[in-house]
Amino acid sequence: MTSPVTPVLPENFLASAFALTDVARRHTLAYFRTPLDVVTKDDESPVTIADRETEAAMRQWLRQAHPNHGILGEEHGCERMQAEYVWVLDPIDGTKSYISGSPLWGTLIALLHRGQPVLGLMDMPILDERWFCQSGGAAQWNGRPVHASGCRSLVQARLYTTSPDTFGASDWQRFDVLSRQCVLRRFGGDCYSYAQLAGGHVDLVVEAGLQPYDYMALVCLVEGAGGCITDWQGAPLTVSSDGRVVAAATPELHAQALAVLSDS
Amino acid sequence: MTSPVTPVLPENFLASAFALTDVARRHTLAYFRTPLDVVTKDDESPVTIADRETEAAMRQWLRQAHPNHGILGEEHGCERMQAEYVWVLDPIDGTKSYISGSPLWGTLIALLHRGQPVLGLMDMPILDERWFCQSGGAAQWNGRPVHASGCRSLVQARLYTTSPDTFGASDWQRFDVLSRQCVLRRFGGDCYSYAQLAGGHVDLVVEAGLQPYDYMALVCLVEGAGGCITDWQGAPLTVSSDGRVVAAATPELHAQALAVLSDS
Repeated sequence: MTSPVTPVLPENFLASAFALTDVARRHTLAYFRTPLDVVTKDDESPVTIADRETEAAMRQWLRQAHPNHGILGEEHGCERMQAEYVWVLDPIDGTKSYISGSPLWGTLIALLHRGQPVLGLMDMPILDERWFCQSGGAAQWNGRPVHASGCRSLVQARLYTTSPDTFGASDWQRFDVLSRQCVLRRFGGDCYSYAQLAGGHVDLVVEAGLQPYDYMALVCLVEGAGGCITDWQGAPLTVSSDGRVVAAATPELHAQALAVLSDS
Repeated sequence: MTSPVTPVLPENFLASAFALTDVARRHTLAYFRTPLDVVTKDDESPVTIADRETEAAMRQWLRQAHPNHGILGEEHGCERMQAEYVWVLDPIDGTKSYISGSPLWGTLIALLHRGQPVLGLMDMPILDERWFCQSGGAAQWNGRPVHASGCRSLVQARLYTTSPDTFGASDWQRFDVLSRQCVLRRFGGDCYSYAQLAGGHVDLVVEAGLQPYDYMALVCLVEGAGGCITDWQGAPLTVSSDGRVVAAATPELHAQALAVLSDS
């Protein structure tokens, strides 16, 4: 493994990602729409026993299946981050949806090879949909190939974000200028916005305040569907990015969005 | 039918409401996630052939089944509004969701008896969920009884709305003051927010800019689940209300919300 080129991903790693979603569903579905104590974390996001127990079960499975791999998870931190392969886990993306009975929450799984995302999977248990992609491959929705739309123009773009509350004041101003040029802006997406983009139903997703476990799984998925996903300066997303994400169906649309969002 | 008391609803009227959802699903599901031309209406809301064709089919079915009943629909206007019974139809509530591939759109059906809502039904085709209630009965979710939460305090309330874009400036200010007192505020609900409230998962829904076909089906559903639903002044919702709606899990929570929202 000394080649500078990203290796073809061993086949069992995709099987591992699917197995992880099975592990996660056992815990997330058991707690969904049951009374849960909600704790507010330091970043003001909510967390429940469902988030913590699900991630703990996923980590335990990974330690047995891939003892040399690293793990970065939303609820239980980092381990072996210098490993060649690192899994990035969000047991419940959309905890606000989860604790209020909405079906729009998912489990996000990314696999990084030397820091580069090489596999992304979004599992939507209530919708029974799995969206995934390996780097260099085609994005898939329950096993069927999907493709982003051909939208190249802001005025025709359907734009999604999760909440105005995730933006700082100056970021909101840029978002507002951008989104008012689009044919449609809609709130409340969480991770599923990016699935809608990969499936050709949404053309632009713009967010701020995200964490690596919120976006690393989306990189392969969006790129494998023919779309573009970067930070607001146009740089590739890494675990050190600043949490501002723009995903677009085409390079042309991505460039138009960057022209409004970036500092330059 | 000269009694001033609301009659017990004839049993076949509920069967008619269910038959209408079957009619609607045939059209809405056929067009979902297919390329659609979107037209912007005078009120800036989008409409597609799916909305128009679905409502036309529902009206045709109603004219045959209940030729003496009136109909008020989003896309094709009013007929026989002076009839004893009037059906209020929204073929696709959440058209923005529908045209961007989100599962959170529904078909809303209310039946009014001399202007009073006596039946409400929300059909969510992608989730395969039917939420309904007859006046005086218990709200049901796919045939199982549901009940709103016991939340009596703003600081513990999970609050939903659809979009900041539906509020005028002063309404937004009141909403903002109210929602910042709640434990959680989330955007993007459309009609499903009220199902989440009826199911006990959301405690407060506050909206503005709604039309009768957006809210008349929700009255029986929310009240049959033990909740309260009125306009922002605390008055019962009618087809002439001003489109500002507040629904709460308990009378206590409803009163606290009104204290912030109402003009008095």
